[in-house]
Amino acid sequence: MKTRFILIQTSHAGNVGGTARAMKTMGFDDLVLVAPRWANVLRREETIQRASGANDVLANARIVETLDEALDGVSHLCATAMTPRDFGPPTRSPRQHFEFLLNKEQTNEDRQAVGYENDSNSWPDGVAFLFGSERFGMRNEDVYRSHVCLSIPTLPTFGSLNLAAAVQLIAYEWRLALGGFELPPSGAPTVRQASAQAVQGMLAHWEQALVDVGFLDPEAPKKLMPRLNQLFNRAQLTEEDIHILRGVAKAMRQTAAAARD
Amino acid sequence: MKTRFILIQTSHAGNVGGTARAMKTMGFDDLVLVAPRWANVLRREETIQRASGANDVLANARIVETLDEALDGVSHLCATAMTPRDFGPPTRSPRQHFEFLLNKEQTNEDRQAVGYENDSNSWPDGVAFLFGSERFGMRNEDVYRSHVCLSIPTLPTFGSLNLAAAVQLIAYEWRLALGGFELPPSGAPTVRQASAQAVQGMLAHWEQALVDVGFLDPEAPKKLMPRLNQLFNRAQLTEEDIHILRGVAKAMRQTAAAARD
Repeated sequence: MKTRFILIQTSHAGNVGGTARAMKTMGFDDLVLVAPRWANVLRREETIQRASGANDVLANARIVETLDEALDGVSHLCATAMTPRDFGPPTRSPRQHFEFLLNKEQTNEDRQAVGYENDSNSWPDGVAFLFGSERFGMRNEDVYRSHVCLSIPTLPTFGSLNLAAAVQLIAYEWRLALGGFELPPSGAPTVRQASAQAVQGMLAHWEQALVDVGFLDPEAPKKLMPRLNQLFNRAQLTEEDIHILRGVAKAMRQTAAAARD
Repeated sequence: MKTRFILIQTSHAGNVGGTARAMKTMGFDDLVLVAPRWANVLRREETIQRASGANDVLANARIVETLDEALDGVSHLCATAMTPRDFGPPTRSPRQHFEFLLNKEQTNEDRQAVGYENDSNSWPDGVAFLFGSERFGMRNEDVYRSHVCLSIPTLPTFGSLNLAAAVQLIAYEWRLALGGFELPPSGAPTVRQASAQAVQGMLAHWEQALVDVGFLDPEAPKKLMPRLNQLFNRAQLTEEDIHILRGVAKAMRQTAAAARD
């Protein structure tokens, strides 16, 4: 779905750069600034520094004077505001709203709550996320024209997220709702798990070695071997691990043999 | 669950302030810095500026020299790293891992994968989130000692989140997993929905008014009234709305009567 981030009357260049970076990490690149404090904000040093390589997002960004000019091609407006407005659109958490927006099974009541008709053809195919200024947030009139007011659930007594951090959260939730990105492959390389038989063979080897080095008394073994067995089970040993552990046992036995000579 | 955020070798004071702010918005306050670049980082101007009022988090923060000193009282270590390490702990997305961590129904296999015994008493009651330096990320040895490597799913070609933005995302996901905060009450104040009868009465009033002002031809009404009926249904009218709409109808009729005189 076409996705645009719109910053309205942003004061801090660093936040514009941070927004570009946050958007790009989540694969979005359509940024519009409405009446930013600095006309040259896209080229300021702090912006570029905080963008940290998201230069293409800055290069593609547009600066316009009014919110109207920022809205071409996007029909669904999501305000972000800490303080709900009387008579404003419904307040929802991002996760709740995105699930709803992308779920084709909404009830008519659901659809009407955010201003859509029953006809499913009227469902939006482009979405804009609106962020107000750092100091004053969004103007009432900009909230009123939105279909929903997204509220990030925060500590009630300290609800003020940094602007770029709020963009990061919204971009992240929206990307996950759209299907997300794959994680890189897990740290552990593909390995061949040792068979239970191989583990038991290694344990038998260790048992001999532990007796040889005088740690295990065959007359009073207590629970030593069952404990080791449990430990190695939990460790999900690979064939390579078995090889190493057998090497240790072999070294113990050789050392014990040398000590006996 | 006891929750700590640990920043290792952080370079930028702004990120320490941003971290404090991000933590506080999600209701966390236990911050430890391991060998930060600036010994006085908690008192630097940029730190305090970016903390934006989260001064209590900064005041409670500790600075230590080694990761070991930062780990008292927390048993479950979550590394955050873009690049999985060979032989490192399993890589998981935050949402996936937090659901798992807080779900009491894990399988033994699940538990063993992150290094826990079958005995449910060994399950962690304190968690630490580790964040490496801005330039180099986490050291291999710090990743190795962690139980899991949390990877935020990002655009594969641009995976570098700002440090404070990453803290914001992890804090947000962890807070939601722990049960979350309530949203503020929705924008719309509690109102009394108009009854269907009241809507029909208002529509009848409008029908007369529309005839009076010459917009509705009673001989050829087409679908005007059904359309208005649909429109007002979607609008979920309140009693106050009915009052206003009847006022409009009344004014239309009075104007039409005056025009006839």
